[in-house]
Amino acid sequence: MKLATLKDGTRDGRLLVVSRDLSHAVGARAVTTLQAALDDWAAVEPELQAQSDALNGGHDEGRISFDATACASPLPRAYQWADGSAYVNHVELVRKARGAEMPESFWTEPLMYQGGSDTFLGPYDDILAGDEAWGIDFEAEIAVIVDDTPMGVSPEKASERIRLVTLVNDVSLRGLIPAELGKGFGFFQSKPSSAFSPVAVTPDELDTAWFGGRLHRLLIVQFNDQPFGKADAGVDMTFSFPELIAHAAKSRPLGAGAIIGSGTVSNKDTSGGPGKPITDGGLGYSCLAEIRMVETILKGAPATSFMKFGDRVRIEMLNEHGASIFGAIEQTVRRYDPMP
Amino acid sequence: MKLATLKDGTRDGRLLVVSRDLSHAVGARAVTTLQAALDDWAAVEPELQAQSDALNGGHDEGRISFDATACASPLPRAYQWADGSAYVNHVELVRKARGAEMPESFWTEPLMYQGGSDTFLGPYDDILAGDEAWGIDFEAEIAVIVDDTPMGVSPEKASERIRLVTLVNDVSLRGLIPAELGKGFGFFQSKPSSAFSPVAVTPDELDTAWFGGRLHRLLIVQFNDQPFGKADAGVDMTFSFPELIAHAAKSRPLGAGAIIGSGTVSNKDTSGGPGKPITDGGLGYSCLAEIRMVETILKGAPATSFMKFGDRVRIEMLNEHGASIFGAIEQTVRRYDPMP
Repeated sequence: MKLATLKDGTRDGRLLVVSRDLSHAVGARAVTTLQAALDDWAAVEPELQAQSDALNGGHDEGRISFDATACASPLPRAYQWADGSAYVNHVELVRKARGAEMPESFWTEPLMYQGGSDTFLGPYDDILAGDEAWGIDFEAEIAVIVDDTPMGVSPEKASERIRLVTLVNDVSLRGLIPAELGKGFGFFQSKPSSAFSPVAVTPDELDTAWFGGRLHRLLIVQFNDQPFGKADAGVDMTFSFPELIAHAAKSRPLGAGAIIGSGTVSNKDTSGGPGKPITDGGLGYSCLAEIRMVETILKGAPATSFMKFGDRVRIEMLNEHGASIFGAIEQTVRRYDPMP
Repeated sequence: MKLATLKDGTRDGRLLVVSRDLSHAVGARAVTTLQAALDDWAAVEPELQAQSDALNGGHDEGRISFDATACASPLPRAYQWADGSAYVNHVELVRKARGAEMPESFWTEPLMYQGGSDTFLGPYDDILAGDEAWGIDFEAEIAVIVDDTPMGVSPEKASERIRLVTLVNDVSLRGLIPAELGKGFGFFQSKPSSAFSPVAVTPDELDTAWFGGRLHRLLIVQFNDQPFGKADAGVDMTFSFPELIAHAAKSRPLGAGAIIGSGTVSNKDTSGGPGKPITDGGLGYSCLAEIRMVETILKGAPATSFMKFGDRVRIEMLNEHGASIFGAIEQTVRRYDPMP
């Protein structure tokens, strides 16, 4: 089953059931919003599934063309957005780029930050920033949306709580990170609103690509229409989603609709070293910070800039037949001038 | 106007309009939940105000006795919970207790952490912890709930976005903080679910105690039924609520219903040094970490333990006539055993 949220002028939008090939959609009958569906999943899911089956079976009653650009994030706002850093390779590279050491424990204990979730961007919404000096970067990630999850849940039990899978652009302001982390309280201004893929899917839609609590497909990133990354989200993910959920729920329960992110997807090169650019036959990168780090290692200084006003990122994942699973996130950076 | 949320078995509870003296309440007519009211405040507020006026005028139609112990937090779950550390005195003492230096910039730039908001505790709910070694502590704070707030808002404009004021117990797990902050991503497991006072009030209910973007009343804290703290929330608050809101909104807008906290209320002693215990004629403390720090300074080691199973904290604020403004937060720590 594939779900999306149409922007309809309301804060939480209108829940759509989307066809597998993303060509058509129908308004959900049982509930109006995705949060309402997640709040009562056991009761609502069968009816959504029935609509999905009808839509995929070619029943066209009430169906509309599906327009991903008219969508909000599946949850336009959420009660919880906790983002792990499961691809420890990425963490190690970004730390190196900041001149910071990475403790060995990062390979055995998940790293996670508490994100803000009241104002997510839509998948085609502009990224607004006050200043290019903020160091605007994208981070292409996978996330899961969970049902109510008890405090102290085990990874085994946590895997049963996963309801939906999406892509994320976890927008990061690299220029604001060092000072903010230096204050010791973690990210705040340096992690503005994230954007999610137009479509969230139930794990069964991922077929054999979903196993071991990981999504085993390439995450395709384009930067200004050029190929930039195609890291395999199932490779080098040190902690599985169930392990991340269990980490998040150690000292509190998670509410229905809580979103748990993977952190920036990152593969080591086959040599075991840092990744290679796509232009050199490598798998490329899922954020600019990482290519800048590799440039620094290889050439002594970063050659690639962070995003400038007008720069565009596109994040997508294709199935084994080359069709888009989640629709694309496609965002352009624009200058924001606050009202006087 | 005073608002509360009755636990009614639903996730967001039932919005009540509460009488000024907290004796009675009526179910809100215009909307069912506080989030719904905040989502459409301009339209809903007049009707809530009319109900409030009728209730305070002695109209008893449909009114029920108000039972604070039957309440959830005013927002049982929220889309944003950002907690500042506006009482820099507290930050300095807690840092000293951890053996960490405090940068000078903390006096000029607000410190803020991104909290989780999907599973708030009710004001009389138990604090569940897996282990006393987690270092369970309370933090008595003030918070404001804002309306939609644009990115880049000025402190002047931010003050107009404040809709409601509440008390908070920002539960902290001191034993988990050093390792977690050492990882550099800020708090996560060390900041479990917070609890809010039964009643949230519009700033006009605070009368002359609300000025300069601060709440000028004593925050009364009892620990195991003994007086523990009576710090003035209007004193030593280095950053006002409008300044905290502006900080939170630097790189993103805030959604209606976003909660911005003050951080632990803390006064310097009149001598300018660390506070004195209430038993020594001082203003006491709003968290255990602070008394432990003062004990360390004065006696070389902390004498007070963090909360043990069965320990109880009560947080309240009284008006100039000695009546409770927000109702009390009263919570007991209990052992939590995860299900197998």
